[in-house]
Amino acid sequence: MQREQEFNTIDDVFNLIRDELRDAEAAYTGYLQTNVSLIPKISEHIILSGGKRLRPALLILTMRMLGGAPGSGTALAAVIEFIHTATLLHDDVVDEADMRRGLAAANAIWGNEASVLVGDFLFSTAFDLAVDQRNIAILKALSSATRRLAEGEILELMRTADVDTTETDYRKIIEGKTAVLMAAACECGALLAGDDPGRQEKMRSYGLHAGMAFQIIDDILDYTSREEALGKSIGIDLEEGKLTLPLIRVLEQAAPAERERVRDIILADFVSPEDFSQVLDLIRKYRGIEFSTARATEHVEAARELLADMPASPYRGALDFLARYIVNRDR
Amino acid sequence: MQREQEFNTIDDVFNLIRDELRDAEAAYTGYLQTNVSLIPKISEHIILSGGKRLRPALLILTMRMLGGAPGSGTALAAVIEFIHTATLLHDDVVDEADMRRGLAAANAIWGNEASVLVGDFLFSTAFDLAVDQRNIAILKALSSATRRLAEGEILELMRTADVDTTETDYRKIIEGKTAVLMAAACECGALLAGDDPGRQEKMRSYGLHAGMAFQIIDDILDYTSREEALGKSIGIDLEEGKLTLPLIRVLEQAAPAERERVRDIILADFVSPEDFSQVLDLIRKYRGIEFSTARATEHVEAARELLADMPASPYRGALDFLARYIVNRDR
Repeated sequence: MQREQEFNTIDDVFNLIRDELRDAEAAYTGYLQTNVSLIPKISEHIILSGGKRLRPALLILTMRMLGGAPGSGTALAAVIEFIHTATLLHDDVVDEADMRRGLAAANAIWGNEASVLVGDFLFSTAFDLAVDQRNIAILKALSSATRRLAEGEILELMRTADVDTTETDYRKIIEGKTAVLMAAACECGALLAGDDPGRQEKMRSYGLHAGMAFQIIDDILDYTSREEALGKSIGIDLEEGKLTLPLIRVLEQAAPAERERVRDIILADFVSPEDFSQVLDLIRKYRGIEFSTARATEHVEAARELLADMPASPYRGALDFLARYIVNRDR
Repeated sequence: MQREQEFNTIDDVFNLIRDELRDAEAAYTGYLQTNVSLIPKISEHIILSGGKRLRPALLILTMRMLGGAPGSGTALAAVIEFIHTATLLHDDVVDEADMRRGLAAANAIWGNEASVLVGDFLFSTAFDLAVDQRNIAILKALSSATRRLAEGEILELMRTADVDTTETDYRKIIEGKTAVLMAAACECGALLAGDDPGRQEKMRSYGLHAGMAFQIIDDILDYTSREEALGKSIGIDLEEGKLTLPLIRVLEQAAPAERERVRDIILADFVSPEDFSQVLDLIRKYRGIEFSTARATEHVEAARELLADMPASPYRGALDFLARYIVNRDR
């Protein structure tokens, strides 16, 4: 694939669409103007606290790769980022999180009530902006992704602390809670470029694979990263009873006594450093990280393969780099 | 106005559109089918627990009055009821409510997490169904109402326990949290009938006035009703620090010492029966109920006047009865 060599860091990718990402940043603030002062306060706290803007980048890169005009993706980039931010606000209520992106979580400052309602405001603002695009196919991509996103979150809640969670369950959960929105970002990018259905579907699939890989790596990092790099506590999935792929692998492979031990740790109210370290030992023993990384890599390769049918351009190179970056990042 | 006399009870209104309301009931359940079992469990708990179906009725009556075909409002009736139900689920999290419609509130059974996420599922399902109507004007009516609804809820949260809340603040709050969705129900009914913009706007305005009156009466009932009739505790607005019109009237009129006493009661963690009875005495002294009822009646009359330009039919009579029913109901 041509010109991949131009991208050495994720910043090279962002630089390629710097102007459009900057317009999108301005749009985030602009669209949140309201005379209800708590709304910009809370939503800007979370939106402007240094998210990676991966979803807006996916949308803009896909659109430019397929010939869309510069600037025509700004509103939908905001839509996708608002939907993502709304889910973060609601997730933090669900998880009773104290930290998010290295800052105090919104619910810890303003209370669960405010996080729930400002999340709702972001959701409805997202749809309101999307409707203004007057494009039914785009609206359908977004509404159906958002519905599946909620399903994924609920499935995750139902499987909390359930040691019988299978890899299939896990895949359904992360497809809903993460991958479908990234898929929708790419699909909307393709739709904005007015491209043919075949390419729309392939780019949706690219986004889905990228999203699956992204979440698997996210779940790995919760076991392997350092807190300073991640901007949030590590080990919180275990603390919250979230069974992710490294641990599911352990539970599928472990001896009955080991399985029992993990179950006790998951069901306990508090996970001590010793508990965490025991779980890490088991993950090492059963190669849970390597297994999960291999799964993520499969998705990345599937995503990259889908790009082969796309027109060669720096944007395609950037999307190719992004897919590889997802498995190589440390936060 | 012709044929008003046919309606003696609210059931007469519902009987007029019985078949369509029945189809809508079937749609509620049908649209909630998913293989994530917690979703129908929670959403049916709240949706099938005996809501008045006022919003679906407003939509269907408006549509039929303006010549829409029977049955063409079923999907949008479900959309409006799902949006309403989503806000109820999220409200109960915000209010930490124990009861709703005479049953345990969903959050009290399944936890706040489930209420937040199933509310999100209902919101996104509502938009997904609405998009399938492929009508941008209808989508805009819904998305803009939902955005203003969230604003209203947040404004209410910001004004919690604020004794300086004015009647203007209160009107903004109830317009957002209640009236705009009823307005959207009527507007969607008119849009489904394909009627002219003038009538759409008038019916939107009818719904807005009806909604304002509805919420004012709701807030009065929280002081005057009996718990058995209301299906939920009375006095909860005071307990939750929600300043509604009867109390705002007191605070505007009361002597400084009385105002101080009310402030102390509002700020206390717990409202004793004696506190509640003192507040009721002040409401009686300053005629807070009469004042609020008069305001509600103004809205009802404004709503009824808007019907004068609509084609005479049993549906118009039913909408006229509904407006009057709103101020005369006891729950």
